[in-house]
Amino acid sequence: KIEAQLNELHPAEIANLLESLPLQNRRIVWELTNPELAGDILVEVNDEVRLGLIEHTDEDDLVAAVGSLDTDDLADIFEDLPKVVLHQVVRAMSNQDRRRLQSVMSYDEDSAGGLMNPDMVTIRPNVDLGVVLRYLRQRSELPANTDKLFVVDRDDRYLGILNISDLLTTNSKESVSNTMITDQKALLPTLSANEVALFFEDYNLVSAPVVDEDNRLLGRITVDDVVDVIRDEADRSLLSLAGLDEDDDMFAPVTRSAKRRAVWLGINLFTAFLAAWVIGIFAATIEQVVALAVLMPIVASMGGIAGSQTLMLVIRGIALNQIGTTNARWLLWKELAVGSLNGILWACVVAAITGFWFQSQSLGLLIGVALVINLIVAALAGATIPLTLKKMNIDPAIAGGVILTTVTDVIGFFSFLGLATVFLI
Amino acid sequence: KIEAQLNELHPAEIANLLESLPLQNRRIVWELTNPELAGDILVEVNDEVRLGLIEHTDEDDLVAAVGSLDTDDLADIFEDLPKVVLHQVVRAMSNQDRRRLQSVMSYDEDSAGGLMNPDMVTIRPNVDLGVVLRYLRQRSELPANTDKLFVVDRDDRYLGILNISDLLTTNSKESVSNTMITDQKALLPTLSANEVALFFEDYNLVSAPVVDEDNRLLGRITVDDVVDVIRDEADRSLLSLAGLDEDDDMFAPVTRSAKRRAVWLGINLFTAFLAAWVIGIFAATIEQVVALAVLMPIVASMGGIAGSQTLMLVIRGIALNQIGTTNARWLLWKELAVGSLNGILWACVVAAITGFWFQSQSLGLLIGVALVINLIVAALAGATIPLTLKKMNIDPAIAGGVILTTVTDVIGFFSFLGLATVFLI
Ligand SMILES: [Mg+2]
Ligand SMILES: [Mg+2]
Ligand SMILES: [Mg+2]
Ligand SMILES: [Mg+2]
Ligand SMILES: [Mg+2]
Ligand SMILES: [Mg+2]
Ligand SMILES: [Mg+2]
Ligand SMILES: [Mg+2]
Ligand SMILES: [Mg+2]
Ligand SMILES: [Mg+2]
Ligand SMILES: [Mg+2]
Ligand SMILES: [Mg+2]
Ligand SMILES: [Mg+2]
Repeated sequence: KIEAQLNELHPAEIANLLESLPLQNRRIVWELTNPELAGDILVEVNDEVRLGLIEHTDEDDLVAAVGSLDTDDLADIFEDLPKVVLHQVVRAMSNQDRRRLQSVMSYDEDSAGGLMNPDMVTIRPNVDLGVVLRYLRQRSELPANTDKLFVVDRDDRYLGILNISDLLTTNSKESVSNTMITDQKALLPTLSANEVALFFEDYNLVSAPVVDEDNRLLGRITVDDVVDVIRDEADRSLLSLAGLDEDDDMFAPVTRSAKRRAVWLGINLFTAFLAAWVIGIFAATIEQVVALAVLMPIVASMGGIAGSQTLMLVIRGIALNQIGTTNARWLLWKELAVGSLNGILWACVVAAITGFWFQSQSLGLLIGVALVINLIVAALAGATIPLTLKKMNIDPAIAGGVILTTVTDVIGFFSFLGLATVFLI
Repeated sequence: KIEAQLNELHPAEIANLLESLPLQNRRIVWELTNPELAGDILVEVNDEVRLGLIEHTDEDDLVAAVGSLDTDDLADIFEDLPKVVLHQVVRAMSNQDRRRLQSVMSYDEDSAGGLMNPDMVTIRPNVDLGVVLRYLRQRSELPANTDKLFVVDRDDRYLGILNISDLLTTNSKESVSNTMITDQKALLPTLSANEVALFFEDYNLVSAPVVDEDNRLLGRITVDDVVDVIRDEADRSLLSLAGLDEDDDMFAPVTRSAKRRAVWLGINLFTAFLAAWVIGIFAATIEQVVALAVLMPIVASMGGIAGSQTLMLVIRGIALNQIGTTNARWLLWKELAVGSLNGILWACVVAAITGFWFQSQSLGLLIGVALVINLIVAALAGATIPLTLKKMNIDPAIAGGVILTTVTDVIGFFSFLGLATVFLI
């Protein structure tokens, strides 16, 4: 009964279900799934879940499951498969398919080349639309998401596209060359997946051609894969803020998960000790005025919050390609102004509360000044850290938060306790 | 020259450019853009930027720009337009278009009803494919992203879909009813945009029908709008972690931005004072052992980091519909186990460093125990907070982080300083 329900689902839905099951249940469900769907399910699940499933599948079943996959999908999971399976799959392929697989696999997974599928319909410019219609009718089916045909010359050089909708609404006596659109830009295989996604978003595309440097048509990218890119990048940038990987299994064994998380905690422990060391410098001051210990986390945490607002804004701007050298300077100034204004506002509030709480105007004044300093530094750090990381080719979402809070903690503690040491004692 | 370059760009690219320009430059570029593209540009820019542009456009130009928009797009920006403009636009519409606009606008913007476009090709089941082909040829063009035609009965009730690719590859003497696919699920207009996106992702769709409760076809959703939904939701969940709104203008006037950010800072200031109050309880203890002040941020910050890992994992799981009641319990146990393991690991490290730094084994033991406690609480809080917020219909990405760090700060300070008060003094 469960089996029947299960196999009414789409492979992507089964993949979702498998991802959300603890290991033992996952294995049971996997054994109940229709073997015909196994290949597509393996493509849809995330990397770590896939490795677990492959481990628990017979090699013969894997060969059968994977043999009928699209070239781009096979390329995605190729390296996760056991060598024996790969040998059998590759041997069963036609020469053309083998060459195509090599072509896709020669590019980075997160590039236009890695996303492209060589399976598409190409036509010549010098025939009329009636011929194209007859040619299509001879095929029993078209590749999924075929919204356009690609017009190429004898040498497979890309000339333009013929939209299916134009094919349907134009007189069939018209020639392809008169009907095709020649200003549809083709993508280079080295373009990053993120840029491909922005291109699809801007131009509302269903498919787009990929060509090599000689303008030879290599394949096409389809929107279903672009949708996955956008979702994956979104998951990645969210999870990397917490030092997690979007390809990790939510139900990985405890020790494996603990080990992975430990790295991130270790990095943060190091920065926490750095902050503690700064506090330690002023231990003598704190000993005299214990209120400083009570209040110092406020200065540090407000800096962290304000800085992370700027940081997030810049991280998103970078991801959308909306921040360049000219407007980065504008943005920096704006963030500094916003930081100063909010610094002054909240400094007044905090100063008033502190003055009242500890019955000390000078302590209130002191924390106010420290707060203004830290919020301005936070704006500066929040804007410059991600831009610098980007230049160094480090993902700002991973490292940005750690560096930022280190800066705001250190500056927060140092300015508050330092000012106290100078003026209060 | 700039003008010529500008107007070679796609409206979405111009929208991107406008969003990334400071206000003065944005106005200059806006005045140079081709008025024919203005409507589409207004649809593409984010809400606050749009309001600014509309403010600086003549009413006549707005009427012209907005008059030719798709119904779903007009509905998106409808409420941002001046009343005078709306009157003129609505008056110029046909009765059918007016009814359609009302239908789209009667649903939430972030629902299937708000995303749907009533502009689509419908056919009857009892004709043959040749008739359909001739019908399409009579039209000069098809709506964008038409990959399927919708088969309806006399009363506009949804019967199934006819894929364009099947239309092209099947004998034209076949009837629509024999060729159409009847198991393509139609969406209800009340379905949330996020669910629509997951549906498109899972089924790799280009378009999908929307029907009312009587199964009457209302419109269709196309993948280009779904792509925007995924991007918007991704931006929203990233920015809401920092209390920002994805529809805010990066270059809004300083005072406006400062005011908006102030709210978030105020909330966080409140929680910081809560933590300070907890420290204040133990002021006497800190006065005697100042090392406690030096070390206490370590306990709090490690808890915050560990907790946010669990939090992020659960937030994403919720967004992907991958966390239900059964596996939530599993996940909680797993996170508690991971938290305990890492708690013990880093407790040992911190205890050793502390013992060495302050030459006190008891202080080391103490911070170790506090760390284990805080990491376990962090796992518990990281898993339960987002699930509880979700049940209360509050976005876990907005409130989750603030609540979590409040918990880990308070528990971190309380356990460390409390233990010290009991055992050290
Ligand atoms: Mg999935
Ligand atoms: Mg792929
Ligand atoms: Mg992969
Ligand atoms: Mg778009
Ligand atoms: Mg594909
Ligand atoms: Mg991945
Ligand atoms: Mg945009
Ligand atoms: Mg918007
Ligand atoms: Mg829309
Ligand atoms: Mg809408
Ligand atoms: Mg998909
Ligand atoms: Mg639309
Ligand atoms: Mg919005």
